[in-house]
Amino acid sequence: MKISTLSIGDELISGQVTDTNSGTIAAALLAEGLRVQRHLTVGDNEPDIMDALNDLAHVSEAVVVTGGLGPTVDDMTSRAAARATGRRLVIHDEARMHVRQMSGKLEMPISCPLSDKQAMIPTKSTLIPNPKGTACGFHLIHNGCFMFFMPGVPSEMIVMLRETVLPFISERVTHKRVIRTASLNVFGPGEPEVDELLLGIAKPDQGLSMGICVSYPWIRVTLRAEADSKDAVDELLASAVRTARERLDEYCFSLGEITLDDVVAELFRNAGLTLALAESCTGGLIAKRITDSAGSSRYFQQGVVTYSNEAKNRLLGVPTELLAAFGAVSAECASAMSRGVQSVSGSDLGLAVTGVAGPDGGSDEKPVGTVFISLASMESVRTERFQFHGSRDEIRTLTAWTALDWLRRYLLII
Amino acid sequence: MKISTLSIGDELISGQVTDTNSGTIAAALLAEGLRVQRHLTVGDNEPDIMDALNDLAHVSEAVVVTGGLGPTVDDMTSRAAARATGRRLVIHDEARMHVRQMSGKLEMPISCPLSDKQAMIPTKSTLIPNPKGTACGFHLIHNGCFMFFMPGVPSEMIVMLRETVLPFISERVTHKRVIRTASLNVFGPGEPEVDELLLGIAKPDQGLSMGICVSYPWIRVTLRAEADSKDAVDELLASAVRTARERLDEYCFSLGEITLDDVVAELFRNAGLTLALAESCTGGLIAKRITDSAGSSRYFQQGVVTYSNEAKNRLLGVPTELLAAFGAVSAECASAMSRGVQSVSGSDLGLAVTGVAGPDGGSDEKPVGTVFISLASMESVRTERFQFHGSRDEIRTLTAWTALDWLRRYLLII
Repeated sequence: MKISTLSIGDELISGQVTDTNSGTIAAALLAEGLRVQRHLTVGDNEPDIMDALNDLAHVSEAVVVTGGLGPTVDDMTSRAAARATGRRLVIHDEARMHVRQMSGKLEMPISCPLSDKQAMIPTKSTLIPNPKGTACGFHLIHNGCFMFFMPGVPSEMIVMLRETVLPFISERVTHKRVIRTASLNVFGPGEPEVDELLLGIAKPDQGLSMGICVSYPWIRVTLRAEADSKDAVDELLASAVRTARERLDEYCFSLGEITLDDVVAELFRNAGLTLALAESCTGGLIAKRITDSAGSSRYFQQGVVTYSNEAKNRLLGVPTELLAAFGAVSAECASAMSRGVQSVSGSDLGLAVTGVAGPDGGSDEKPVGTVFISLASMESVRTERFQFHGSRDEIRTLTAWTALDWLRRYLLII
Repeated sequence: MKISTLSIGDELISGQVTDTNSGTIAAALLAEGLRVQRHLTVGDNEPDIMDALNDLAHVSEAVVVTGGLGPTVDDMTSRAAARATGRRLVIHDEARMHVRQMSGKLEMPISCPLSDKQAMIPTKSTLIPNPKGTACGFHLIHNGCFMFFMPGVPSEMIVMLRETVLPFISERVTHKRVIRTASLNVFGPGEPEVDELLLGIAKPDQGLSMGICVSYPWIRVTLRAEADSKDAVDELLASAVRTARERLDEYCFSLGEITLDDVVAELFRNAGLTLALAESCTGGLIAKRITDSAGSSRYFQQGVVTYSNEAKNRLLGVPTELLAAFGAVSAECASAMSRGVQSVSGSDLGLAVTGVAGPDGGSDEKPVGTVFISLASMESVRTERFQFHGSRDEIRTLTAWTALDWLRRYLLII
């Protein structure tokens, strides 16, 4: 079935608000084995909405529309839908009752002309119940195309989509192909390197396709399998995921929606080790990411953000002579920081970063983007120099990613 | 000028990634007085891209396309553009040189067949320089419609948009209505309260409209003025901004793109005061935000993330008896933390937060969302209890916002 989505709203077409409904709908349809082919956005403007509906009805068998069903004058989807499909706009008794009941339930003031506006839907349409808000949705068939109209409020839309629209569409699709996707999350290599590592895994003629999406600074590889049966699709996908994991090896830090931070948290919980952090150029970003995980208090003991040399000396015991001889951005300082925070806190592991995030502070010898990362354990200290590129924000982000990936790799092999 | 945008990518049409480019482009065009009429999204599929280009060229005078210019096989925008407009795809010498130079600069491995792919553009096209990445953009004229093609990576796209596409379009538009927007950024009151405070400022019949957009946890109020001349629009907008600022008073922390963090940084630079942070529930988030600002090392001395009671005692001198008597989440502990970090670091100001971010750890007396914020200066300590609601992430975000807003208000009146 050829499916399109249409999002309506001035706030969307002007870039004030980012449309998330189209993505939600596409993902929900994909889980049913159905693909959206086109997505269109237009403003709250009657001719534009009418053109959009006519164009989409022409190329699609189903159109899922969101937005423009509100009570205010700038919501004009119902009228445009009626005109585009040659229908009249009439007050629908059931819809009127719904608007009144919901207005009472949601403790909203009932303003009669406005609430009647929300109860007006095109003739020859069927209501789509909205259990969470006043705006009723409706669906109709125009020139053989199923058209569904729902409000743009995401929390209302999603319930209506799940309860009415998806079952309706799903029932009418015969010979559905089963589609399943899986994704692998990768940190380290660039896009061309990942592409080369995974060469030949995609087999479009056998129903297996692959997409590589850079989600700075990591990369998501999505594998998509399509077949006639659930078993066939599961087998196809599992085998492709297995091969991709083997090829990506340690670059692949997780599958699906699991973040690098989730992986690090899980590894710490399992290892029973504790951690302390000493950050300079990342200024608390690594501690923030570690403590994003609920339950991090079990392994995370303390963090210090030592921006000044004096703080590095006082809080971490980095010798002032070392700072004078090598500078705060040096392997020597990074090692002293990681060793210092580990010993001061009595943690199993001490992780330290120091570097030049920019935009100022770089030199010929240590340009902006020079970063030292150091990990101290009971047995050893490992310190490495990195040269990152980009803005201050990008260098800080890359530093935090690299440091967290070090923790992951360390915890994986112990 | 009728303008459309087209975003291309399987990750977009499938709902895996939310498209932000179309919004960025629409907002940038709006600032030039130009409105986007239609936005379309399709997947990495040659027939779909060709159909989309043909349809949009039919209804628009300019089409701004993003995505599908990468080095991998699933990027097929250039080929589809060539076929849709009856051109051949050829290696462009300048583009090839650019790909090689950028690959070297970004330290990416040059894999010849791949990099040559990015250097192939349709004949009778003009390059759009990409100073930030390997993918070249290009523009061409098809049946009288200007078509611009840029990569989908937002940081690359935005530079190309600003440096090449916007000036090109702007030059060709005659009889523009002048549109200017201004925005006020608000923290504290909710949307209905802001709406009430600003009642009557919008005057649509005089060309002045207003939008309120919740950008959790703050609110952006956008005023938009439209008139025939630059002077008329500037006067209209300036007067509306003045009135809105007066009504919002201290709730308005900045105008335009200036963030709360920027404001705090500017106030610190001007005040010549230094700051130290002691964070518990925010786990480094406040330090991260303070050090996001380049030059923060001038006023930010150190931060500590004291998750454990032991760290609160050792690093900040919070007495163990106090912790035993009142608990770590208490006004007493927050005050001792702010006073402690201020005195240990020798800073002018010490800011401390302690609370229950959840999802566990709440009690009847101190439910999840209970947060104490404390600010110690040489003269005084001010500590306050807050009850926030939401997820762990939301509570941490609200805590950091409230703490930074405290700093702003404190620095404003000294």
